[in-house]
Amino acid sequence: MPFYAIISGAGSGTGASVARHFAKTYPVVLLARTAASYEPIVADINANGGKAIGIASDATDLAAVQAVFEQIAKELPGHQLAAAVYNPAAGMKYLPFLEQELATLDASLATNVRGLFLFAQKTIPLLLAAVDAKPAHPPTLIVTGATGSIRGSAKFATFATGKFGQRGLTQSLSREFGPRGVHVAYVIVDGGIDTPWGKERVVNNGVEDGKISPDAIAESYWHLHTQHRSAFTQELDLRPFVEKF
Amino acid sequence: MPFYAIISGAGSGTGASVARHFAKTYPVVLLARTAASYEPIVADINANGGKAIGIASDATDLAAVQAVFEQIAKELPGHQLAAAVYNPAAGMKYLPFLEQELATLDASLATNVRGLFLFAQKTIPLLLAAVDAKPAHPPTLIVTGATGSIRGSAKFATFATGKFGQRGLTQSLSREFGPRGVHVAYVIVDGGIDTPWGKERVVNNGVEDGKISPDAIAESYWHLHTQHRSAFTQELDLRPFVEKF
Amino acid sequence: MPFYAIISGAGSGTGASVARHFAKTYPVVLLARTAASYEPIVADINANGGKAIGIASDATDLAAVQAVFEQIAKELPGHQLAAAVYNPAAGMKYLPFLEQELATLDASLATNVRGLFLFAQKTIPLLLAAVDAKPAHPPTLIVTGATGSIRGSAKFATFATGKFGQRGLTQSLSREFGPRGVHVAYVIVDGGIDTPWGKERVVNNGVEDGKISPDAIAESYWHLHTQHRSAFTQELDLRPFVEKF
Amino acid sequence: MPFYAIISGAGSGTGASVARHFAKTYPVVLLARTAASYEPIVADINANGGKAIGIASDATDLAAVQAVFEQIAKELPGHQLAAAVYNPAAGMKYLPFLEQELATLDASLATNVRGLFLFAQKTIPLLLAAVDAKPAHPPTLIVTGATGSIRGSAKFATFATGKFGQRGLTQSLSREFGPRGVHVAYVIVDGGIDTPWGKERVVNNGVEDGKISPDAIAESYWHLHTQHRSAFTQELDLRPFVEKF
Repeated sequence: MPFYAIISGAGSGTGASVARHFAKTYPVVLLARTAASYEPIVADINANGGKAIGIASDATDLAAVQAVFEQIAKELPGHQLAAAVYNPAAGMKYLPFLEQELATLDASLATNVRGLFLFAQKTIPLLLAAVDAKPAHPPTLIVTGATGSIRGSAKFATFATGKFGQRGLTQSLSREFGPRGVHVAYVIVDGGIDTPWGKERVVNNGVEDGKISPDAIAESYWHLHTQHRSAFTQELDLRPFVEKF
Repeated sequence: MPFYAIISGAGSGTGASVARHFAKTYPVVLLARTAASYEPIVADINANGGKAIGIASDATDLAAVQAVFEQIAKELPGHQLAAAVYNPAAGMKYLPFLEQELATLDASLATNVRGLFLFAQKTIPLLLAAVDAKPAHPPTLIVTGATGSIRGSAKFATFATGKFGQRGLTQSLSREFGPRGVHVAYVIVDGGIDTPWGKERVVNNGVEDGKISPDAIAESYWHLHTQHRSAFTQELDLRPFVEKF
Repeated sequence: MPFYAIISGAGSGTGASVARHFAKTYPVVLLARTAASYEPIVADINANGGKAIGIASDATDLAAVQAVFEQIAKELPGHQLAAAVYNPAAGMKYLPFLEQELATLDASLATNVRGLFLFAQKTIPLLLAAVDAKPAHPPTLIVTGATGSIRGSAKFATFATGKFGQRGLTQSLSREFGPRGVHVAYVIVDGGIDTPWGKERVVNNGVEDGKISPDAIAESYWHLHTQHRSAFTQELDLRPFVEKF
Repeated sequence: MPFYAIISGAGSGTGASVARHFAKTYPVVLLARTAASYEPIVADINANGGKAIGIASDATDLAAVQAVFEQIAKELPGHQLAAAVYNPAAGMKYLPFLEQELATLDASLATNVRGLFLFAQKTIPLLLAAVDAKPAHPPTLIVTGATGSIRGSAKFATFATGKFGQRGLTQSLSREFGPRGVHVAYVIVDGGIDTPWGKERVVNNGVEDGKISPDAIAESYWHLHTQHRSAFTQELDLRPFVEKF
């Protein structure tokens, strides 16, 4: 029985690397708000012997999320879901709390929490079904977290609120669905990511490998996916060797 | 210069006890969604030599929250804010994740996170102003948390999401406003609370003191408020001696 | 039935303040390695209407600890133990790990862990006996922790090792003896303490109240001791309002 | 330049699996208290195209640890250290605290903390030297932790004390040596391990894969070792899918 993987928030550096990595094994579905975000990656995967489908969709919109899974059922008939990655990023506002707007909080909650809720409600039944299909690796849901999920900071109030909530939701899902064979994991990405569009942003004094390689993130996501069900990791951190923590 | 305290979510067992305790020292403003929730407490405080004002208000509604502070300015002219307590409870749905509705998540976020955001944006400027008035105790914002703020569990997904988010927001506020003299604290209430309307609910096998006394919670809130600014507590837990944790 | 309190590590700023505070209610026993550490405090308490006994003792030596409790039984016949505070400090070596000596690690373990083990094995049976005597406040064991108990840092390796271990031991005691009525609490002191002999040490840029008042610590210890058994705190932090964390 | 790996505590199920896994890439040195523990593994690796050296040694004894590294220098001349794994297990005593003996605490501290201190002081200089040799993977120190490192429990007091201390030490090493290119990671093994000699011990109601596969642990250790230095994991947990946590 064929399997596929889905990456929500596939247009970012991390999303693109994860899609490419999982595409070595599975057809991959890439979700992003705008097609322009995923088109080059989709084209590249398809041109290099993989199979990728891009779907433009708002992760925070219930109807849009439902439409995504209807489209997948048509485009990948008979496929089971092997792995789902939730990776959308909310635009973070680094501002003193008294200058933060409710709309910024709502955007953080929409992307980090409500979108994950919708994604999980759609993917977990598919992942549970996949458990019965005896896949090579346990069906997996991986959520991209951040330092803000374990540490609230001045000026990061709206971001931390969403990320703490996201971690709590993910942990709840781990405790509920782990025993049913679905591996739910949270990855605390702690550091700047080395993306093409962030090249000019200097972190860690510009030291080599001071920004996280998105391909390295993808390696750890794949490792999580391939963990034996007797040894699931629920949470791990990823940070550059020079990062202060 | 006179000071007052405000308790949002004053209709619960905890809110009522906190209001009574703080009313020994300050005029208190009690907020609850419906007047019926706070009326007996307000009457009781006023009948016993204290001063209490009740205002019916939806903690999750921006306009309602703004109206509250306009009314307070009129009813307690010239008063500074000594202590603010955020204690509203969202109706918790103990359900498997796949049976949870988005509306339940939204209700949890509205009460635990958005309401606190609004309350903090209104009270923190007042607490900062009070710092300059050199009060007997450092101006204080206390938020009522729960075990769900540090532990996501099966069937508690929507509750934990809101409570994790609330803890992250509170921790951010502590880091930002502590250095400016405002004491922001989070209290992790871990156990059933001994309220009149929960008398029949059996916890800890019905052992004496197996439910948390709301008056005991109020004692710790008062202790937090009176801590010297050289020794602020950011977070503490409260649980019955017999509670498993 | 009369009660007493005991403070191990009574010669420090924190120990002295805790002894004075608890002496308002109980006869207090002060333990320190050398009599010179506690003598002025003992004299002062006795001169001001309290009752204090000092015993020179090495907290890390089994025979010495046993001798302490034999002496107490003679000096305070018929007294029950209301509160025990474990507060000895190991000389901390702030050094790169590769320059740390095994002897420094052993000193940290001896003071932070082995001494607490001995103290707890002697005091917990007495505290359990006191539960049956129905004291005004639940019998209490309080341990003085530090930031190093929750965060290992470069150059703090030997200190963090001891403090992490101490926190794990205390948490184990809480889970075991809380249900039997003994309140075991850990206090994470996060910041420099304002002691007479540390006056010249500048922290937080010398801002007023930037060092923790030992009297403020004592207030929180007393609050812990007086908490109702339906609302025990297992752990709290104490830090100056300006402290980074 | 050739590299090697060393596993302290190689006689256990975890240690044996880690040795076999790392032996696919490196000559491996297996340390255990008695030769009988590692002999079959050493023989098996050498018979199957790998290279393994066993050294009987007490991990808690300074002179013994020094002798180990002198012997390695002779047996693997010109080799650099690529990976060091600290995995010795202390005999755990599951007993009420008041029945625990100081000797049990000392054994826990010796194995979990003092032995790691000695091992780290010997291996970290070698790992730092290996950084300069530009190995394929960042030089790595991995420590085997347990649930007891983050949770103190009734009857687990001596075990938790040692494991908390070990986690604090490891975290300190991560913060100090990560920026110098050495990857230090702590693995929280949460569950019973499926070893030949523990076959009869029933956990998780005997469900298939309810005990952790030591080979699965080895997979994650290898993943940690091969992580890019821009994306080091400091800590991860491993538990059976059915394990309560």
